[in-house]
Amino acid sequence: MTLKKLLQKLQTIKEDETFELKGWLISNRGNEKIRFLTINDGSTVSNLQVVAKGEIIQKNNLSSLTLGTSLVVNGKIHLTPNAPQPLELILEDISLINNVDEDYPIQKKETTLDFLREIPHLRSRTNLFRSIMLIRNSLAFEIHKYFQEHDFLYMASPIITSNDGEGAGETLLVDDETKDYFFKQKAFLGVTGQLHAEAYAATFKNVYTFGPTFRAENSHTSRHLAEFWMVEPEVAFYELKDIIKLADDLLKTVINNTIKNYPDEMKFLNSINPNLLDTLNKFLENKLTVIEYKDVVKKLMEFRDSFEEKNIHFGMDLASEHEKFLSEKIVQGPVAVINYPKDIKAFYMYQNDDYQTVAAFDLLVPGIGELIGGSQRESRYHKLVHRMNELNISKEPLDWYLDLRRFGYAPSSGFGIGFERLVMYVTGVSNIRDVIPFPRVAGQIKM
Amino acid sequence: MTLKKLLQKLQTIKEDETFELKGWLISNRGNEKIRFLTINDGSTVSNLQVVAKGEIIQKNNLSSLTLGTSLVVNGKIHLTPNAPQPLELILEDISLINNVDEDYPIQKKETTLDFLREIPHLRSRTNLFRSIMLIRNSLAFEIHKYFQEHDFLYMASPIITSNDGEGAGETLLVDDETKDYFFKQKAFLGVTGQLHAEAYAATFKNVYTFGPTFRAENSHTSRHLAEFWMVEPEVAFYELKDIIKLADDLLKTVINNTIKNYPDEMKFLNSINPNLLDTLNKFLENKLTVIEYKDVVKKLMEFRDSFEEKNIHFGMDLASEHEKFLSEKIVQGPVAVINYPKDIKAFYMYQNDDYQTVAAFDLLVPGIGELIGGSQRESRYHKLVHRMNELNISKEPLDWYLDLRRFGYAPSSGFGIGFERLVMYVTGVSNIRDVIPFPRVAGQIKM
Repeated sequence: MTLKKLLQKLQTIKEDETFELKGWLISNRGNEKIRFLTINDGSTVSNLQVVAKGEIIQKNNLSSLTLGTSLVVNGKIHLTPNAPQPLELILEDISLINNVDEDYPIQKKETTLDFLREIPHLRSRTNLFRSIMLIRNSLAFEIHKYFQEHDFLYMASPIITSNDGEGAGETLLVDDETKDYFFKQKAFLGVTGQLHAEAYAATFKNVYTFGPTFRAENSHTSRHLAEFWMVEPEVAFYELKDIIKLADDLLKTVINNTIKNYPDEMKFLNSINPNLLDTLNKFLENKLTVIEYKDVVKKLMEFRDSFEEKNIHFGMDLASEHEKFLSEKIVQGPVAVINYPKDIKAFYMYQNDDYQTVAAFDLLVPGIGELIGGSQRESRYHKLVHRMNELNISKEPLDWYLDLRRFGYAPSSGFGIGFERLVMYVTGVSNIRDVIPFPRVAGQIKM
Repeated sequence: MTLKKLLQKLQTIKEDETFELKGWLISNRGNEKIRFLTINDGSTVSNLQVVAKGEIIQKNNLSSLTLGTSLVVNGKIHLTPNAPQPLELILEDISLINNVDEDYPIQKKETTLDFLREIPHLRSRTNLFRSIMLIRNSLAFEIHKYFQEHDFLYMASPIITSNDGEGAGETLLVDDETKDYFFKQKAFLGVTGQLHAEAYAATFKNVYTFGPTFRAENSHTSRHLAEFWMVEPEVAFYELKDIIKLADDLLKTVINNTIKNYPDEMKFLNSINPNLLDTLNKFLENKLTVIEYKDVVKKLMEFRDSFEEKNIHFGMDLASEHEKFLSEKIVQGPVAVINYPKDIKAFYMYQNDDYQTVAAFDLLVPGIGELIGGSQRESRYHKLVHRMNELNISKEPLDWYLDLRRFGYAPSSGFGIGFERLVMYVTGVSNIRDVIPFPRVAGQIKM
């Protein structure tokens, strides 16, 4: 049994029940007569306090055990309802598996995030990264669970593609070592699974992808990675308003369940970032704000002096500072901005009757900016081809995508969640490199 | 409500209950007085029979509707307990969304798999691919569910890496278009997530990855893809026998739940491949056979004349024909072969006391051959370094991996499931290109 499970069934545990834990030593204090070892098994950020008394201490040389040692402890539960931790283990048997070399970099004292980024293979052994990765795990599974319970088919869009889905040009090329094109043509790492998901939505109605996507972004920001995971639902017979409702309900469900199932980790993260739980609960309790892009522009104009980029006008792409200001200062919570000018959005979005905008939405959240981007897709073959021509997008590689409009097309809408940004939002962590185990950014691959 | 959900709650449905279905037309027969439309919504391989009578037929020109048309039907349920299908819908209202152009390639008559491989964006609209992809979805979710229920942490191993995890050299290079190395060094698409998963197992004890992996395999076989998905659990404090037990239990649980939850799809697949359900049930009911590699060699020697490769000897890598013969003819079911010669296995595997073998296992299944490969990992720092030296594996890029042995290492074991091979096994499909939406192989990227 894991430590998490033990703590969950606290009400039914009896004094003197036997328990075994396999894990790693987190702290070791006391003397030769009584020692307190705390041990973690990775199932929770909480530790088990193990009390050693008498000859077991000297026999196993417990005083010399250092942080990070792997071990197996056996003993009897002692309930401590009035102590900070609800129970402890009275040690009866201990097996030491392996100790740590002297240069072990993880120590009880605080270390900086910069330092920990240099050792991604070891940083998960801190309370912070243990908490982040447990929350990340929960969010990933809750997303799968939500979609499965709502009859979505999980589909694998290809990673290696022959075309650039977003038309933004920031793609990574795939090659074989000899440069003799393994695929006999140029191949890219996919920037989105959406186009392929649309093909599957035209059979299965509700589908989603959950896989890695890639951008050759040279910008070194706290919000961008070259390799990140995306969740992309696509739903046939759905229009813009339906997909926004789905996004809102999905987010609220997975966040709510995660807060409920990982109380210790959320408490720990809240101790670092004291507004975290308040912010999340406020989101859970409130209706999502939906606002037209054109009204956002008007609002931002009123606050022109707050921005570096003061040229606020219809047609502009909102900068990160504008997005954050909108969600943090004006709305003070998540906000879905809808109906963007078509010239700043992708070719496949549904062209509104005003000839100016497309049925797109971005979901912006405080602290992060864009968390989700989505749209209703252009369903009219000729409008789609016309837009591709306007944008000089070559038709032939996308003939298959155009086919979908010719063969029993149903209105289709979808969105993409930057999964790491969702983890940032829920953990309150401000740098995206800290919410993925081994971050990849321009100029650097660690391990 | 989806059609699948409707059929699942058959016992509680009342005559004349109203029902709406959004989907696509599968067949259309009858005359101007009565017509039978069958409609599929992608939730199941089963269709809904819709009966249209009287003026609704001519008003909506139903006789002209062609296969593939997207539509919404409303009507009242009529229970038909004595008919092949348990219920039908008496049509009251129909909205035609979009029809299909004349060159629609999916027709009611059978088409070849070769032909369908040319149109991966449309082939999911056949009963076969609808079934395969629904089963694939089920297997994926059941895998996540199994691991979550058993306290495993889902972790994202990186896709882009600086080293070749298996040491087999069949890697795809990642570049930016300008060849000015985006990552400032050579970068590859990962062949395994295992090494990184080991780092996380050293914190979280039980972890798993589920993501795409890549091989620049030039062999055009029915069992290989350049891009495929792998499931890789890694468990600290586990030895070889424990991880084999995990593999067996995982497979049996996910297969059993899938058969139970997708009876119509399994029935359809069994109609194409009449041994399918028998084979799977036999696996579910029987204890997994475990056999030493050295005993396999002895066994195969007895059947030398059955093979193209007749030079059967200790030290050889089993060819696909040997693996299949072992599972299909000798064991007649799945078999775990253990303790392979170290020279045909990867550097990181635990070296047995005989100095000849490593604590590895391959799980072989009839019809497919290798479904799972795994091992106990070498836990002894010096043995691991020694083996890397023997194999001329450069130490520096793997210093981080070696670190794990120096810092509180616990015995760790894991395996990788080729997810598409599992889908092949459960669907009875013999070509791996038919169990992934958009297959990628040497020399070819479709869409």
